[in-house]
Amino acid sequence: MITSPGNPKIKNVLLLQSKSKARREQDAFVVEGIRMFLEAPISRIREVYISESFSVSDAAAKKIDECKAAGAYAETVSSEVFKKLSDTVTPQGILCVMRAFHYEPSDLLDGEAPLLLIAEDIQDPGNLGTMIRTGEGAGISGIVMTSDTVDIYNPKVIRATMGSIYRVPFLVTKDLPTFVKTLKGRGITTYAAHLAGTKTYDVCDFTRGSAFLIGNEGNGLKKETADAADTYMKIPMEGGVESLNAAIASAVLLYEAARQRRQT
Amino acid sequence: MITSPGNPKIKNVLLLQSKSKARREQDAFVVEGIRMFLEAPISRIREVYISESFSVSDAAAKKIDECKAAGAYAETVSSEVFKKLSDTVTPQGILCVMRAFHYEPSDLLDGEAPLLLIAEDIQDPGNLGTMIRTGEGAGISGIVMTSDTVDIYNPKVIRATMGSIYRVPFLVTKDLPTFVKTLKGRGITTYAAHLAGTKTYDVCDFTRGSAFLIGNEGNGLKKETADAADTYMKIPMEGGVESLNAAIASAVLLYEAARQRRQT
Repeated sequence: MITSPGNPKIKNVLLLQSKSKARREQDAFVVEGIRMFLEAPISRIREVYISESFSVSDAAAKKIDECKAAGAYAETVSSEVFKKLSDTVTPQGILCVMRAFHYEPSDLLDGEAPLLLIAEDIQDPGNLGTMIRTGEGAGISGIVMTSDTVDIYNPKVIRATMGSIYRVPFLVTKDLPTFVKTLKGRGITTYAAHLAGTKTYDVCDFTRGSAFLIGNEGNGLKKETADAADTYMKIPMEGGVESLNAAIASAVLLYEAARQRRQT
Repeated sequence: MITSPGNPKIKNVLLLQSKSKARREQDAFVVEGIRMFLEAPISRIREVYISESFSVSDAAAKKIDECKAAGAYAETVSSEVFKKLSDTVTPQGILCVMRAFHYEPSDLLDGEAPLLLIAEDIQDPGNLGTMIRTGEGAGISGIVMTSDTVDIYNPKVIRATMGSIYRVPFLVTKDLPTFVKTLKGRGITTYAAHLAGTKTYDVCDFTRGSAFLIGNEGNGLKKETADAADTYMKIPMEGGVESLNAAIASAVLLYEAARQRRQT
């Protein structure tokens, strides 16, 4: 059992929890909680830390054994050390270091009628995580993020995905306008949710390859990004509402696409 | 200028920021930021506090004068005292104490085809605030909350409403199943978003009076509440997604209702 917060492995988990640079350098990230552990692909689990006060269920014990058999490091830590490790106020008592995912554009863009969510400079980790969770629910092919978007492996993003982080393919791009243009070449129509839109979103046909551009929380889409899109459209808003939350706008668009696709 | 955090008015604002009991007793709440100030109905503004470091725009100066003329107390406070007053990390420099809103059931239920959102025991202030903001955008007649829902005047709820707190009528009920039954008598169909739903939400007709029941984040709807509803329905979810965030589910349902209503 690890009882010292000065243990090098413990210090490294803390680094991975707090620094996106460390996550990039080690090509790794941290997930917390029993659900995230049980859903985690075993081949990606590098290390498992179990609090001494964690009551290990049969399912958890079985998976811990499978992780060890697959070569993962697994160790019990004192409750106090675990509290330090955890990014949450009420730690669930189990936490893993995972190997990062790597996707190719083809993972998102192949297939008959891709449905993509494109996030430009989203800053709030809860928003990004919720967009990924909602996106999986609506059946997206993947999510594309600008490099100025909050790190997808930020612990708060991971928590908000509720496990979708394991299943939704994603790409990060430094040049979104160019990426948007390449989508045209693949027959994917890009839609910019934009206050200047004249078309209401629900008159658009999302049954073919479609990509929704969602802008930063405070500033909306950059002009050059919106200009690169095929269509501006708007989500109608009643009363005094000037904009919707980024995750909410994503949900409205993605579930309209899913609705149209169920009807064809 | 107030420079002492011990000033009784300052101490009272702090109490209103942190305690729902104080808000109930004084029938008051606190709003922060220039946008919330400019959108606030003057008749409800009881007190205005301006940080000495706040750069007062013409519009703000005019409104401060109007508040004073209407009998409100307005005072400058030192930057340090303002920092204590503010619930945010980066205070915007203006903050008001407001008189609470009071609505009658008729404010929500009259009209031709009411569209209601009903929140059962929602705990996350960001979720409730976002539900109110999204609800206004989709054109709801009002929101009904159980008494175990997070206080609508919690500063984080207010912030997440982005001003919709001023415009969306609301009721709080201690007995949601009975309230749901009274809706039937008024010709309003209640829909429970429920994992046991067999009907997909988008085959339901929301053009008539409709009310959506949204359950607590962790537990979903209580059985007795769901049983009181007219219809169970589900929001289809792909992949490994077991549920949607409460605000996201609200958005999907309300915007489907708005879409149907635009077509009639």
